[in-house]
Amino acid sequence: VKKKSMTRPTAVARDHFDLLGFAHRLADRASVATLPYFRRALDVDNKAGPNDFDPVTAADRDAEAAISELIRKELPEHGLFGEEFGDHNASAEFKWVIDPVDGTRAFIMGIPLWGTLIGLMRGATPVLGMMCQPFTGERFYGDASGAFLKIGRDAPRPLQTRRCARLQDAILTTTSPDMFTPGAETEAFARLRSQARMTRYGGDCYSYCMLAAGLVDLVVESGLKSFDVVALIPIVERAGGRITTWDGGPAHEGGRIIAAGDPELHARALEILSG
Amino acid sequence: VKKKSMTRPTAVARDHFDLLGFAHRLADRASVATLPYFRRALDVDNKAGPNDFDPVTAADRDAEAAISELIRKELPEHGLFGEEFGDHNASAEFKWVIDPVDGTRAFIMGIPLWGTLIGLMRGATPVLGMMCQPFTGERFYGDASGAFLKIGRDAPRPLQTRRCARLQDAILTTTSPDMFTPGAETEAFARLRSQARMTRYGGDCYSYCMLAAGLVDLVVESGLKSFDVVALIPIVERAGGRITTWDGGPAHEGGRIIAAGDPELHARALEILSG
Repeated sequence: VKKKSMTRPTAVARDHFDLLGFAHRLADRASVATLPYFRRALDVDNKAGPNDFDPVTAADRDAEAAISELIRKELPEHGLFGEEFGDHNASAEFKWVIDPVDGTRAFIMGIPLWGTLIGLMRGATPVLGMMCQPFTGERFYGDASGAFLKIGRDAPRPLQTRRCARLQDAILTTTSPDMFTPGAETEAFARLRSQARMTRYGGDCYSYCMLAAGLVDLVVESGLKSFDVVALIPIVERAGGRITTWDGGPAHEGGRIIAAGDPELHARALEILSG
Repeated sequence: VKKKSMTRPTAVARDHFDLLGFAHRLADRASVATLPYFRRALDVDNKAGPNDFDPVTAADRDAEAAISELIRKELPEHGLFGEEFGDHNASAEFKWVIDPVDGTRAFIMGIPLWGTLIGLMRGATPVLGMMCQPFTGERFYGDASGAFLKIGRDAPRPLQTRRCARLQDAILTTTSPDMFTPGAETEAFARLRSQARMTRYGGDCYSYCMLAAGLVDLVVESGLKSFDVVALIPIVERAGGRITTWDGGPAHEGGRIIAAGDPELHARALEILSG
């Protein structure tokens, strides 16, 4: 019988560490923490009034604890950043950027379009991203090997954006028209929307995944945080899309974000947003 | 061995016909017809451009054919009405009111918030309603026995709206702010929205089901057709909610529709909508 090594893995040994497998394990832990709070009102043992209990806060807190524990235990030299986490090991080469529950309104309302966002930065480059929707059993993820959707125990299917170069053919989506500040930002979005084929509201992180799947052409949002977007970058980019700020800069710090399935459409939309 | 009766069931024998079981069978047929077209872009054999194929039209057409066939065969004296069906047996006592794919934008974009709506009117009264979302495996339904959610093979769980009498505590949703005509209608919705605790867009038929589940307090929409709403009425009402037109009339003919989980909130919202 092979003796189990008692030595702590070194940074060198980490070259062979299965980061994608680790992300799946983080998603497993997060799912166990979040799902019991989703649609809590449907449970017979919760007949308290609507304001006595905040399920999304509890889900956030429990998922944070589970994720944080696993990262600190297995990858103690890695960094960790997120709304609920603060900024742990801020100068680390690898940093996990996490939102335990992205899409809190959807979560509260029982709509299965929220997700646990698990991103990994190496320096200033997002190298791995996963969006886990535990109610539907879907995981969308991207890393150096490509972008994939895995549903439950099914085999992963590759994600690929679709070609759609012209705005008049494009399906545009954003979480809410209210996310844009009145004035120039609202006007820029209105210009884009007036030229798109169709606009639909209310997608959160799910919209970026549908863009990666070739079903949506443009996602345009504002006021995003780093942890709202880092995990989505490898999914969108590895599926063939482009995701940047409205002025074409890198998306990983958040702010005003635009994702397009077709790089030509991305360039055209940037022009329209800038006026 | 009992000999199978060869006589055609009479109208009297129909008193014992399992209408809810029949609605489930219609939903089974519709699911088989719609699901293959949902997220078609993810199939490797469909690499055509985005405009070469309209999946929602195909899903509508196939689901219509399947549903229509079963009703005409097993309940030939019943009526049938819907966008795709026309108006068959218009003067029948029982009339099925069907929308094979409600939420076509969601369907096209891969978002699992669309549904097959199966309603049954007896005269001017909606007596049974079902919303079937085949991707998540959810069926929300209501009839004389109550309102329930059944997911896959799980046992049905009762649906119950929550108490929320005050607008400032209410979660409000509508499919899109663009569904209201400019002027008085848009202003009425804006008044309501400005007083609600939270507003989210983009739910289609799913929002009414989340209201029935006690997770949403108000759904306010406009321009609905009969087949967009009939199936939802027994679900909302049997769960304890109220659903009417904006002037308090019966909802089954569509138009401007408001659903509230709490009858007190419904009354208050009607006042605000009327100015």
